Amino acid sequence: MNYVRPDNRQFDELRPWNIQVGVLDYAEGSALVESGKTKVICAATIEDRVPSFLKDQNRGWVTAEYSMLPRSTLTRSPRERGGKIGGRTMEIQRLIGRSLRCVTDLDALGECTITVDCDVIQADGGTRVASITGAWVALHEALKRLAQEGRLDGDPMLDSVAAISVGIVQGTELLDLNYDEDSSAEVDMNIVMTGRGKLVEVQATAEGDPFSLTAMNRLIRLGQRGINAVRDLQKKAVQS
Amino acid sequence: MNYVRPDNRQFDELRPWNIQVGVLDYAEGSALVESGKTKVICAATIEDRVPSFLKDQNRGWVTAEYSMLPRSTLTRSPRERGGKIGGRTMEIQRLIGRSLRCVTDLDALGECTITVDCDVIQADGGTRVASITGAWVALHEALKRLAQEGRLDGDPMLDSVAAISVGIVQGTELLDLNYDEDSSAEVDMNIVMTGRGKLVEVQATAEGDPFSLTAMNRLIRLGQRGINAVRDLQKKAVQS
Amino acid sequence: MNYVRPDNRQFDELRPWNIQVGVLDYAEGSALVESGKTKVICAATIEDRVPSFLKDQNRGWVTAEYSMLPRSTLTRSPRERGGKIGGRTMEIQRLIGRSLRCVTDLDALGECTITVDCDVIQADGGTRVASITGAWVALHEALKRLAQEGRLDGDPMLDSVAAISVGIVQGTELLDLNYDEDSSAEVDMNIVMTGRGKLVEVQATAEGDPFSLTAMNRLIRLGQRGINAVRDLQKKAVQS
Amino acid sequence: MNYVRPDNRQFDELRPWNIQVGVLDYAEGSALVESGKTKVICAATIEDRVPSFLKDQNRGWVTAEYSMLPRSTLTRSPRERGGKIGGRTMEIQRLIGRSLRCVTDLDALGECTITVDCDVIQADGGTRVASITGAWVALHEALKRLAQEGRLDGDPMLDSVAAISVGIVQGTELLDLNYDEDSSAEVDMNIVMTGRGKLVEVQATAEGDPFSLTAMNRLIRLGQRGINAVRDLQKKAVQS
Amino acid sequence: MNYVRPDNRQFDELRPWNIQVGVLDYAEGSALVESGKTKVICAATIEDRVPSFLKDQNRGWVTAEYSMLPRSTLTRSPRERGGKIGGRTMEIQRLIGRSLRCVTDLDALGECTITVDCDVIQADGGTRVASITGAWVALHEALKRLAQEGRLDGDPMLDSVAAISVGIVQGTELLDLNYDEDSSAEVDMNIVMTGRGKLVEVQATAEGDPFSLTAMNRLIRLGQRGINAVRDLQKKAVQS
Amino acid sequence: MNYVRPDNRQFDELRPWNIQVGVLDYAEGSALVESGKTKVICAATIEDRVPSFLKDQNRGWVTAEYSMLPRSTLTRSPRERGGKIGGRTMEIQRLIGRSLRCVTDLDALGECTITVDCDVIQADGGTRVASITGAWVALHEALKRLAQEGRLDGDPMLDSVAAISVGIVQGTELLDLNYDEDSSAEVDMNIVMTGRGKLVEVQATAEGDPFSLTAMNRLIRLGQRGINAVRDLQKKAVQS
Repeated sequence: MNYVRPDNRQFDELRPWNIQVGVLDYAEGSALVESGKTKVICAATIEDRVPSFLKDQNRGWVTAEYSMLPRSTLTRSPRERGGKIGGRTMEIQRLIGRSLRCVTDLDALGECTITVDCDVIQADGGTRVASITGAWVALHEALKRLAQEGRLDGDPMLDSVAAISVGIVQGTELLDLNYDEDSSAEVDMNIVMTGRGKLVEVQATAEGDPFSLTAMNRLIRLGQRGINAVRDLQKKAVQS
Repeated sequence: MNYVRPDNRQFDELRPWNIQVGVLDYAEGSALVESGKTKVICAATIEDRVPSFLKDQNRGWVTAEYSMLPRSTLTRSPRERGGKIGGRTMEIQRLIGRSLRCVTDLDALGECTITVDCDVIQADGGTRVASITGAWVALHEALKRLAQEGRLDGDPMLDSVAAISVGIVQGTELLDLNYDEDSSAEVDMNIVMTGRGKLVEVQATAEGDPFSLTAMNRLIRLGQRGINAVRDLQKKAVQS
Repeated sequence: MNYVRPDNRQFDELRPWNIQVGVLDYAEGSALVESGKTKVICAATIEDRVPSFLKDQNRGWVTAEYSMLPRSTLTRSPRERGGKIGGRTMEIQRLIGRSLRCVTDLDALGECTITVDCDVIQADGGTRVASITGAWVALHEALKRLAQEGRLDGDPMLDSVAAISVGIVQGTELLDLNYDEDSSAEVDMNIVMTGRGKLVEVQATAEGDPFSLTAMNRLIRLGQRGINAVRDLQKKAVQS
Repeated sequence: MNYVRPDNRQFDELRPWNIQVGVLDYAEGSALVESGKTKVICAATIEDRVPSFLKDQNRGWVTAEYSMLPRSTLTRSPRERGGKIGGRTMEIQRLIGRSLRCVTDLDALGECTITVDCDVIQADGGTRVASITGAWVALHEALKRLAQEGRLDGDPMLDSVAAISVGIVQGTELLDLNYDEDSSAEVDMNIVMTGRGKLVEVQATAEGDPFSLTAMNRLIRLGQRGINAVRDLQKKAVQS
Repeated sequence: MNYVRPDNRQFDELRPWNIQVGVLDYAEGSALVESGKTKVICAATIEDRVPSFLKDQNRGWVTAEYSMLPRSTLTRSPRERGGKIGGRTMEIQRLIGRSLRCVTDLDALGECTITVDCDVIQADGGTRVASITGAWVALHEALKRLAQEGRLDGDPMLDSVAAISVGIVQGTELLDLNYDEDSSAEVDMNIVMTGRGKLVEVQATAEGDPFSLTAMNRLIRLGQRGINAVRDLQKKAVQS
Repeated sequence: MNYVRPDNRQFDELRPWNIQVGVLDYAEGSALVESGKTKVICAATIEDRVPSFLKDQNRGWVTAEYSMLPRSTLTRSPRERGGKIGGRTMEIQRLIGRSLRCVTDLDALGECTITVDCDVIQADGGTRVASITGAWVALHEALKRLAQEGRLDGDPMLDSVAAISVGIVQGTELLDLNYDEDSSAEVDMNIVMTGRGKLVEVQATAEGDPFSLTAMNRLIRLGQRGINAVRDLQKKAVQS
C-alpha cells in the first residue's frame, strides 16, 4: 500500500466535513454541506400536493432534485436545460429520493410532498454522498417546522440517513475519494446507511478490473466507519 | 420460510431460461433471451466511428441502448419518443454498457463502436439482467465476425459476463424474481458477474426496510449460483 | 419485361407471408406478420378512455403507432426517442389508424380506445402494408375478447382490411416489393383494401418519371390479386 | 345528385383562382395563390449548400416547408413551435417537395438547395394543392433568376406541376372542395399532375365508406379538368 | 450631421406607413401594417378561457405572439418550430402583450383571452413597433365586435397605443430606422406611447458606445413626433 | 410621500450591498454579490473557442447565462431544464451579456469566449442588477488572470459597468426595490451604467399606469446615485 493520497490523507481518513443548517431564508429546511472543496446547498420545500399515483391515499411523498452549477467543476459544463437531463443526474436524484424515503414514514407525513433540491456549488468528488447527507438535514428541518406548526400526528422521521464513497485506487482501498481519486479508481462504491447502521443502498461498480466479494466487504466496512463520523456531524447540526 | 412463489419455484430456482443466437438477418450479432415470460432481443451493430472523446486514440467503444415495446408490460406504457428518456431506461442502458466494457479490451477492438440494442418484447421482471446476459452473446457474435473478417489483431473478449436478480420477499431470499415478486420485494438486488466469478456491478436497494450486511452477502451468494447456470447457457449458445 | 427479381419471384408473386396470432401474453390482441424477411409484431391494447375530441359521445376510437427497432434495417438507425418523430413514421402510423377505423363501427365500440402498436423487428420492404395487415388481426383478437367479456352491444368489425405494395421497377410492374426493389422503383404504390374489395386508401407516388392513369389502374389490379391472398391468410389466422 | 354546394358552384366548377408572382421583395421567387378564401404565400430561397446525403455529387436539391398562420383557420390553432411538427404538416411538406422534384432536373440545377416556403395566410380547404401550385411558380421564378445570372448550364425545369382536390360529398363527386365540403367528404382525394398530364402523386382516402376503383377513376378525370385550368393560370402568371 | 439616409429621408421623417383593417375573414380583428417594406399581419382571436393564474377572478387577459415568415428577411431564417423559441422572439412578444394590456381594462373585459398574432410577412426593420401599432388596431376591432354582440359591460379600451423606433447612426439621431440603419446603429431605442402621450415602455440599448441622458431625451422627443403621426393613422384606420 | 418601505429604508437608500471576489476555486473569475437577501454567484469561464459568427476574425466574445435555484424564491419554481428556457430568463441573460460587451474591447480579447454564469442562490428583487454588477467583477478577475498569463496584448476592459433598479410604488419613487416593492410597482426600471456615468441600457416599463418623461428622468437620476455607490463597491472588491 504505497499509494499516497494527493492531500496526504490516511487511506481511512475523511476530508474535512462541515454541515451548516438554515442557510436559506425562504426554504422550509436547508443545509450547506462541505466535504473538502465539494459544496452542496440542500433546500427542502413543502407543498400541499402529492404525485398523481398517491392521490387520495392520505400519504405523503419525499423526492429530490440534483443539479450542478455549470462552473462547479474544473471545466465548465453546459446547463442541462436546453433539453433533456443526463443519465448521471437522473441516477443521482433518484438515489437521493429513495434514500430519504427509506427513513421517512410517508403515512405519518400526511398528504404533502417534500422536495429536496441539492445544488452543487462546487464539485470535487463525492457530490452524491454529500447531497444525501445534506438532504436528510434539510428534510429534518422541514419536518421540525411541520411539527411545530402542529401539522403532524406522529413523527415521520424513522431514522437518520447518510452516505459515503469508498473505492480502490492503485490497489489501495480508500475512504471519501476526491475527484482525482474518483476518476482513476478501479472500483467505485457508494454506500447509504441509516443511523442505526442498516444498509439502504449499495452501488459497487468496477471501472477497470472486476472485484471479489471479499474486497467488496472490506470496502463496506471502511465506508461504515466514515458514515458513522458523518452521522455524528448530522446530529450536531440538527441539534444546534 | 413459508413464502410460496407464484409459479411454485424453489427459492433458489431459476425460471426456464433460453438463449438463441442469430435471430436477426442484418445485425452483426444477435440473440433472443427468454427467462420465463420475459423476452429480450439483443442486436449488436458495428460502426466505423468512435465517440468524440475517443477520437484518434486507436481504441474502440462498446455501448448499449435499452427500450421496452409499449405493450411488453401488463398495461401499455407510452413510447419514450415524444421527448426525453426516462431515468429507469437511462440507468439500465448505462449499466449494460458498463458491464460489456468491463469484459472487453477496447484497445484490441480498434477504432470502431459496437452498439448493442436490447429491446424488450415482453417484460415479466428481470429485463435488465436478461439484457446484459443476451447483450454479451450478441457482442460475442459481432466480435467473432470481426475476427473472421481479419479486422482484429488480438481477441478483445476478456471474459463472459452475465447477470441475475435476487431479492427478499416477505422475509424470504429469492433467486430470479418475476414481476409480481419484484414489485413487492423488500430488498431488490442485481448482480453482474464475469465468467470467472468476479463482480462487475452490485446494486442493492432497500425498497422497504434497510438491510444488514449479512443479508446482502447471503443474497450475493444466492445470485452467484444462478449466474453460473446462466453462464453455462451463454457458453452453449455461442458454441452452437 | 426482362427484369429478373432478386429472389426469382414472378412479377405477380407474393413473398412467403405468414401470420401468427396471440404471440404476446399481456396484449388484448397480438399478431406476428412475416412477409419474406420483413417481421412486424402488432399488439392491440384496450383502454377505458377516449381522446378529448370524443369525450361524452359514447363512441370509441382506434389508433396505431409504428416504430422500427434500430437494427431492423441493413444499417442501424437511431431511435426516434431523443426528440421528434420523423415524417415517415408519422405518415405510416396515421395510415394504419385510418385503415383500421374504416372497417370499425366506432359507435358499436363504446367509450374506449384501442391502440395497435406495430413494431418492426426486421424490415425488408413492405413494413407498412405488413403492419396494416397484422394490425387488423390484432384488432380482431381484441374485439373478440371484448365480445367474450360481454362488453359489446353489436359487432364493431364491419369488414377485414389488408394492404399490399406494388410498383414499377425498370419498367416492370411488380407485386410485393422487397427493400431492394422498393428503393429503386420508378413508381411506388400502396393499396389498402377491405375484405369485400373496396378501396380504403391508395397512395401512388412517382419517385422518378410521372406515370399514366392506365399504368396506375394496372398496378391497382395487380395489387388486388395480392391483397386477396393476404386476406385469406388473415381469415385463417383469426379462425385458428 | 341533389347536393347543392354552399357557394352554389357546379360540381365540376373551380373556385375563383388567382396567382400573383413577385409578391415578396427579398425571396428569389415568390407567389401568392388564392383559391376562394384560401390564400398561400410561396417563397423560394436559393442557398449554396446541399443536404449531407448529396455532398460532392454536383446535384441540387429542392425541398419545401408548409405552415399555417395560427389564425388562418376558423378557430385559432397553436403555433407548431413549442415542440414537434404535427403529422399533417409533415405529410404536406413532404408531398410539396416530392412534387417539385418530380419536374426538376436536379443534375442541371448544380450544387444548391432551393427551399420553397408555403405559408398559409387563410385556409378554406385545398391549402396543400394551392401550395403545390404556387410553389411551382415560385420555383420557376427562382430558376429564371439563376438562369439570368448565368448560373445554370441547362434548364432544370422539366415540366410544370399543379394539383387539385376532388372528393365525394353526400354521394356527389366534386371538384375543388372548400373547408365545409372537405370536412364532411366521404372520399377525399388529392391529385398532382404535370403540365403534360402525367400523374405525380395520387392520394385517395376513404373518410367514411370505402370506394370502388370506378369511382376513383371518375374522380381522377374530374380532377384532371380542374388541373388543366390551374395549369393555364400558372402559365399566364410566369409569363407576366 | 452629414449622414444621408439610404432612402433619402430626412432624419425625422417616417417611412410611408399604411394601416389596413379587416384583412382576414375569420379573425375577430385584423390589420395589415406596412412601414416601408416592412409588412406585418396582426390577427386578434377571442377565446372563452383565461390563463390559470386568472381563474375565477372575472377578469380577462390580453396576450400576443410574434413570428417572422422564414423568408421575410434578406436571407432565409429557419422556422422556430423544431424546438425552442429564440430570445428575440420571446422579448418582442412579451413587449407587445404588455403594451396592449397597459391600455386595456382587464376587469371590463370579463373572463376571456384575446390573443393577437403578429406575423411578419416582410422585415425591413421596425417589425416590433409595427407589430405593436397593428396589434392595437386588431385588438380594437375585436373589442368592437364584443361590444356589438353585447358581451361587454363597459369599454375596456382605455387609450390607444403605438410605437416607433429611433436610434443614432454615425452620430445622427434618426426616426423610424430601416434594416440597414438599424443594424449599424450605435444606439437603438424603441418607444411605446399611449394616444395621450404617456410612456408605456422605453428600451434604449447601446450597441456600441454608451450614451448620455441628454441624447436619450432628444431621442425620446424625436420618437414622440413619429408616434403622433402613427397614432393618427391608427385612428383613421379604426374609423373607416 | 407617505409610503413607508417595509425595511424602513429611505426612498433613496440602497439595501446593504456586499461584493466578495474569488468565492469559487475552479472558475477563472468569481464573485458573490449580496443586496439585502438577494444573493448571486457569478462565475467567469474562459474557453478557447468563439461562436461560429466570429470564426477567423481574431476577436473574442463575452456572454452570460442566468438561472435561479428552484428554492431561491418564496415558493419553489420548477427548474428550467425539462424543456425550454423561459422568456424572463432569456431577457435577463441577454441583457447581462450586452452590458458586459459594452465595456469590453472584443478585439483586444483575442480569439476566446468568456461566459459568465449568474446563479441566483436567493432572490429578493433586483437579481438582474445584482447579476450585472457581479458579472463585471467576475469578468474583471478572469481578464486579470489572462493578463497575468501574458495572453493579452492590450487591456480589453474599457470601463466598469453596474446596474440598479428604480421604480414607483404608491406614487413614490424608490431606489433598489426588494421583491415586495417590485411586485407592486407602478413603474419598474432597470438602469445599466458605466463607471464613467454613460448609459448602457435603460428599460422602463409601466406595470400599471403609463408614465411621463419627467418621471422617467427623475428615476434615472435617482438610479444614478445608487449606481455610483455600487460602482465604488466593485472597485474596492477588485482591488482587494
